[in-house]
Amino acid sequence: MGVRTASRLENLGTETAFAVAAAAADWKARGNEIYPFHLGDLDVALAPHIVEAMNAAIADGRTGYCPGAGVPELRAALAEDVGARRGTTYSPENVTVMTGGKPVITKFVQAVMNPGDEVLYPNPGFPIYESQIEYHGGAAKAYRYLPTETGFAIDLDQVRSLLTERTVAIIYNDLQNPISAESTQAEREAIAQLAVEHDLWVLSDEAYFEMRYEGVSTSIASLPGMAERTVILYTFSKKFAMTGSRLGAAVAPVELSRVFSTMNTNDESCTTHYVQWAGIAALQGTQAPVQDMLEVLRGRRDAACEIVNATPGMSVEVPQSTFYLFPDVTEAVGLVGAEDLADFAEQALHRTGVSFCTRNHFGRPQPGEDRSYIRLAYSGLSQERIREGLTGMRRWIESAR
Amino acid sequence: MGVRTASRLENLGTETAFAVAAAAADWKARGNEIYPFHLGDLDVALAPHIVEAMNAAIADGRTGYCPGAGVPELRAALAEDVGARRGTTYSPENVTVMTGGKPVITKFVQAVMNPGDEVLYPNPGFPIYESQIEYHGGAAKAYRYLPTETGFAIDLDQVRSLLTERTVAIIYNDLQNPISAESTQAEREAIAQLAVEHDLWVLSDEAYFEMRYEGVSTSIASLPGMAERTVILYTFSKKFAMTGSRLGAAVAPVELSRVFSTMNTNDESCTTHYVQWAGIAALQGTQAPVQDMLEVLRGRRDAACEIVNATPGMSVEVPQSTFYLFPDVTEAVGLVGAEDLADFAEQALHRTGVSFCTRNHFGRPQPGEDRSYIRLAYSGLSQERIREGLTGMRRWIESAR
Ligand SMILES: Cc1ncc(COP(=O)(O)O)c(C=O)c1O
Ligand SMILES: Cc1ncc(COP(=O)(O)O)c(C=O)c1O
Repeated sequence: MGVRTASRLENLGTETAFAVAAAAADWKARGNEIYPFHLGDLDVALAPHIVEAMNAAIADGRTGYCPGAGVPELRAALAEDVGARRGTTYSPENVTVMTGGKPVITKFVQAVMNPGDEVLYPNPGFPIYESQIEYHGGAAKAYRYLPTETGFAIDLDQVRSLLTERTVAIIYNDLQNPISAESTQAEREAIAQLAVEHDLWVLSDEAYFEMRYEGVSTSIASLPGMAERTVILYTFSKKFAMTGSRLGAAVAPVELSRVFSTMNTNDESCTTHYVQWAGIAALQGTQAPVQDMLEVLRGRRDAACEIVNATPGMSVEVPQSTFYLFPDVTEAVGLVGAEDLADFAEQALHRTGVSFCTRNHFGRPQPGEDRSYIRLAYSGLSQERIREGLTGMRRWIESAR
Repeated sequence: MGVRTASRLENLGTETAFAVAAAAADWKARGNEIYPFHLGDLDVALAPHIVEAMNAAIADGRTGYCPGAGVPELRAALAEDVGARRGTTYSPENVTVMTGGKPVITKFVQAVMNPGDEVLYPNPGFPIYESQIEYHGGAAKAYRYLPTETGFAIDLDQVRSLLTERTVAIIYNDLQNPISAESTQAEREAIAQLAVEHDLWVLSDEAYFEMRYEGVSTSIASLPGMAERTVILYTFSKKFAMTGSRLGAAVAPVELSRVFSTMNTNDESCTTHYVQWAGIAALQGTQAPVQDMLEVLRGRRDAACEIVNATPGMSVEVPQSTFYLFPDVTEAVGLVGAEDLADFAEQALHRTGVSFCTRNHFGRPQPGEDRSYIRLAYSGLSQERIREGLTGMRRWIESAR
């Protein structure tokens, strides 16, 4: 940055995935077919009853400023829904409505971390964790996941080794982006125990809590002693295909809710008024569109996994949640003679039109990493296009073998 | 705050006007009639063509994530509109769409001010200036307005006396909230000259640029040497009665636009996608609703001024812009035997149902202030209710005389 801007900007990271999107758009503009597996977005329409509720709210004059903490009716609906699905009890005072789930990250970090404090975060993980911890002057301490026979698991020994006197919080993303890992109950309890023992705040990023194909999610907030130290990142983005609506919430101990509400008053006054009424309809109206979407996504997941696992040098476990695959492509990178992951991604785009993010878009790679991964988001393409694109990639790698 | 939260929260201010709203709601809940002059909001419906454009965007599938800087078409429309109305030229790269005008304040402060730096800001003024400068570790240096024969004027001598080596920016709110002051061209040029001489950034809060009853507004950004150092706070909130839609923008030099865009990516990903298309319709569609609204507001202004100036111990100039009156009530406070401004406001509420903010809600009062002011927002009540409420207040003060 220029000398006339503030030094804090030197520590502001970003989502580097935009460069992937730009490269794909550029390749497409040059007349090529593109298969966009890089976007964590859904090609699903907003459900009619949600749109109707929004229009009804507008017709009712719900178009002015509303409380910074959110419309009381939405706070109540969220307290009810989030509590019921987690076997816990929340009151509206625990809920602060926000413009998506993402603002919960920056507001959590600002509320609990002093400059110089340490915050543990998953890496690979959602890139904004690292960016916000460092932007606000903290030390971002990455913890990793290890491949096991039953999928990825948090390296708990590493987590323990990272804890110091300065650690104030841990960010925990069960049902993980980009890995799609889900904790066993033992792993979840181990994290909770460390949080209690070391008096840590926990940001539980539950963006994908209900984006699952089998079983039921468990929130770390429901474990003993955890509700009082956990902030849940809740979002309407994925479950209700409302990514562009920008509606989410922090579910937090009341002392933090008050802080979040004041931050909202400072930063953006409130979340779009009538969109909050759309959110109430999403929570309380028919859940058929959610079920339908999950069925569609399940078909896409199966198609994608099948082809990825039939591709030489690529392999992936079938995940039970999120809409990402995080295949190990170490051998495939070698087979096509790519120099590194970035080169592999560029070659894949130019040879097959398949566009994706790599491990490097999800936090700074850590010392000792010796396997290469990419992230395939299957939420934005039809099953047919998924088959087409990934089959093209398979043939390319097969022919390079 | 508790020991487990971050110390920066000690410096986070807020809009204390919420306490006024709460007191009014409480008094109303106890069965009393209320005249809400405390809200800076409009009782005006969203124009039909704006709602239609939003629904068309939803039907077109504009419901997913969009660029952090805003939808290109909206950035282009804003560059065109903002430039044309100010006699300057902006390109889409100068525009960053935000969730209202307010986020421009926090993002400007973060982008240009290091901890310890000094920022000049108007006081009385929009309370978030002071809060955000201090929250981000700066020194908030208040400059005042002085009553003159032709309305309020910035105390330029004071501004000059406040400039130091550490001053990096000045916040300037021509068409001022709460004062409704408008700079003369000489005053505007004086501020610009100081900014150029001292190499300051300028945040030009133009929330009310087109909320005027006579004449044409001039932006400080259009003065020589200013475009490159000025960030315009643009908002759809007032002009298009879109306060609850949360749509605004920063219009800034490209180097800052890039920073703002990255901040958006970190803080909230993007502004509600389909609301941005509603914004395009607001800018490019019929302007009849804007004209109609201004005519209604003019009638309210005239009614309110007439009664205020007929009230013993109260007086106000007829402002040509905004929807606020900032009457001097020093003598009225004395007439009713109120202890101070807060007591005056409480008595007014309980005796007459008239609810308003006082000078004390617009930044910390400064040493040497010897006159008392209140702010009456006439944007949220019909002319009839304005007459009713303010006449009640007049009678109350007359009877105390
Ligand atoms: C793990 C995770 N957390 C949070 C978010 C934020 O989503 P939003 O701000 O749309 O709610 C995302 C979106 O991709 C995510 O993957
Ligand atoms: C002077 C001033 N600036 C900025 C704003 C921010 O408005 P919004 O965030 O709704 O655009 C307001 C709203 O009252 C205002 O009065």
